[in-house]
Amino acid sequence: MSQLQATIEHVQGFSVAGVHAGLKKDNTLDFALIVSDRDCASGAVFTKNQVKAAPVQVNMEHHTTTGDRIRAVAINTKSANAATGQRGLDNSRTMAQLTAKKIGCEAQQVFVMSTGVIGDHLPMGKIATGIDLSYSQLGDDWQSAATAIMTTDTRPKTASVTVETARGKYTIAGIVKGAGMIAPNMATMLSVIVTDAKLSPESTQQTLSKVNEKTYNRIVVDGDTSTNDMVVLLANGASGIEITSDDELVQFETALQHVAQYLAQAVVRDGEGVTKFITVHIAGAHSVADAQQIAHTIAASALVKTAFYGNDANWGRILMAAGRAGIPFDQTKLALWLATGETQPDDRGLMLLNNGTRTDYSEADATAIINAASVYMTLDLCAGDAEAIVWTCDYSHDYISINADYRT
Amino acid sequence: MSQLQATIEHVQGFSVAGVHAGLKKDNTLDFALIVSDRDCASGAVFTKNQVKAAPVQVNMEHHTTTGDRIRAVAINTKSANAATGQRGLDNSRTMAQLTAKKIGCEAQQVFVMSTGVIGDHLPMGKIATGIDLSYSQLGDDWQSAATAIMTTDTRPKTASVTVETARGKYTIAGIVKGAGMIAPNMATMLSVIVTDAKLSPESTQQTLSKVNEKTYNRIVVDGDTSTNDMVVLLANGASGIEITSDDELVQFETALQHVAQYLAQAVVRDGEGVTKFITVHIAGAHSVADAQQIAHTIAASALVKTAFYGNDANWGRILMAAGRAGIPFDQTKLALWLATGETQPDDRGLMLLNNGTRTDYSEADATAIINAASVYMTLDLCAGDAEAIVWTCDYSHDYISINADYRT
Repeated sequence: MSQLQATIEHVQGFSVAGVHAGLKKDNTLDFALIVSDRDCASGAVFTKNQVKAAPVQVNMEHHTTTGDRIRAVAINTKSANAATGQRGLDNSRTMAQLTAKKIGCEAQQVFVMSTGVIGDHLPMGKIATGIDLSYSQLGDDWQSAATAIMTTDTRPKTASVTVETARGKYTIAGIVKGAGMIAPNMATMLSVIVTDAKLSPESTQQTLSKVNEKTYNRIVVDGDTSTNDMVVLLANGASGIEITSDDELVQFETALQHVAQYLAQAVVRDGEGVTKFITVHIAGAHSVADAQQIAHTIAASALVKTAFYGNDANWGRILMAAGRAGIPFDQTKLALWLATGETQPDDRGLMLLNNGTRTDYSEADATAIINAASVYMTLDLCAGDAEAIVWTCDYSHDYISINADYRT
Repeated sequence: MSQLQATIEHVQGFSVAGVHAGLKKDNTLDFALIVSDRDCASGAVFTKNQVKAAPVQVNMEHHTTTGDRIRAVAINTKSANAATGQRGLDNSRTMAQLTAKKIGCEAQQVFVMSTGVIGDHLPMGKIATGIDLSYSQLGDDWQSAATAIMTTDTRPKTASVTVETARGKYTIAGIVKGAGMIAPNMATMLSVIVTDAKLSPESTQQTLSKVNEKTYNRIVVDGDTSTNDMVVLLANGASGIEITSDDELVQFETALQHVAQYLAQAVVRDGEGVTKFITVHIAGAHSVADAQQIAHTIAASALVKTAFYGNDANWGRILMAAGRAGIPFDQTKLALWLATGETQPDDRGLMLLNNGTRTDYSEADATAIINAASVYMTLDLCAGDAEAIVWTCDYSHDYISINADYRT
């Protein structure tokens, strides 16, 4: 496998564009189109929020009916098309139809994504303009496509990897927008990953679901879950490399995981007002679900996040958050370590807590660690063998400013 | 029943004091003692956090063994005595013993409460000083007692009510510290309520549990739950009024609810960096538990709270938070109203959402409401008859400052 790249050069059979359709008031890019020259097997994961935006509902239908022959993804910013009733559903369907007409396929072969303010209707004239313009500019400009789906993101986020096999090479590439389970100002995390490898629809879905669980589902900015979250994987087979054997599938899954983890972490790194990248690693749990629940609760705790922002190794808040996660554990067995960086050191770092009570660590050592730009925390429940990792960021004054002032 | 008072004059048989025992660096009050001249029936509710501070564990024992004859509550600030292992448990027991020795009762007849930094051991010399000093100053200075349990609270919080019965009067009075499910800087909400009415131990516990569910358990500042949370009700019968009949018990419960609701709301009003008092009212749910879960999720959502701080009627965030509460509902039936004030107007206020989609309300009207110091929100799921109310506040820049800089 080649080194993971933070850019995308070319994925066979796919062409893309990002354009200004007039949705945003300034002249920035606000509409993206991704087209495959042939049918794609698709995998898709959708928000678990009870309130599902119109494009999410429409894509769930399309994924069920025509998920084995998807041709395109059209994405607009500015309006999330959520809580918009029947008119919202009609608009999302029209967006798919207009895109399909350009490409020469069925509307059901198009996925549509929207991000922006909840409750506003799509401005359909501008959506039509976006489709026309982007179709006329289709090419390899993935950077523009990734830029066109940004809301309060401060930078476009792209990644790709090329996988060498005995029969040749294929590429996996993806883009993402958002800044956590809820994106900066508009509450959406969207990601599209494409590959020119050939996979069955079942493998495409299963691999995406598996990888999603360990990447996009392991990031937290503020604990809020969007009405529009969606991750899509499209496999068009244009490289001629078909993934059939178990070994090849494992290789594909590993490569996909690299791309997805990079993109998911990029969302945290671009989190609203972020000053620190924090890895929360729960070990010694009875199940992965338990470990993940505790890690997620710590990662979403306002008091943990503000302590990190304040460079305060106030580990009592980590304990408090673990204890309110709803997972039973023995508090007299807990052990806690802090380290700098994004990977766990062999000794797990500085041990702050052992058997549920404070060690004789020096406050200066703990403060030195927490002052770093990346902090790795390991909390061992010393109960079972399961573990989980969640990536998160801190809460800063800028987080409040960005979210208090957003619509103004 | 008399009007609810924000002060406490005298509760028969109870004496209190708040003193400076040297726990805090400045000369502010930091230790409180509440003593009854006779045995009290007690009710108690404890934090559900898996990590329970030593005083919580000790009080759970005392409540089980001698809950029908409690004599005193001793409370220190500065150290929460949580995550302190066996030494922490020993220290809490010593604190109860020293208090019992002064009063002339068993150690098991004393409740101990601690609030402060998690992981620090109690400075037992200063605790002994606090017990000596406060015992020597016992009287009716409830204001000092309420002040002595403050951490980052900006003001002491007290309340009392006198209930007239055919056979005479009794009083219910209480104090509280904290600024939400987790208190400002040290993660604790403590409350002691006393009454000179006589109740059976069973009635004391049942009434407190019932009232707690509708008051202290209905407030949110940041969604974090402390390791030290504790609410205690002591009934010493010194008024000579015994609560026996069902009617009298209902009257007592109503009076207790007034005191507890006032104190619980006072915690929200004194929440960290608070600029707004927000009532979240969920109606039309299938069960109270469902309604409360949705109300709690909205109240704890960082994006909802920052929108209120920004005076932005961004109701999409309310919907988003409701949708991620884990309670199934039909998004096409939702209705949402906003109003100013702390009680629901007859018409529920300005309707923003009907059948899950935006009404044609004017943005100016919505903004005018959300600019008020108190906002009442009603979200109707239009599914069942159950409802629940949660009180909360907004997230401001000061919230971040207070929690980022706390231990420095």
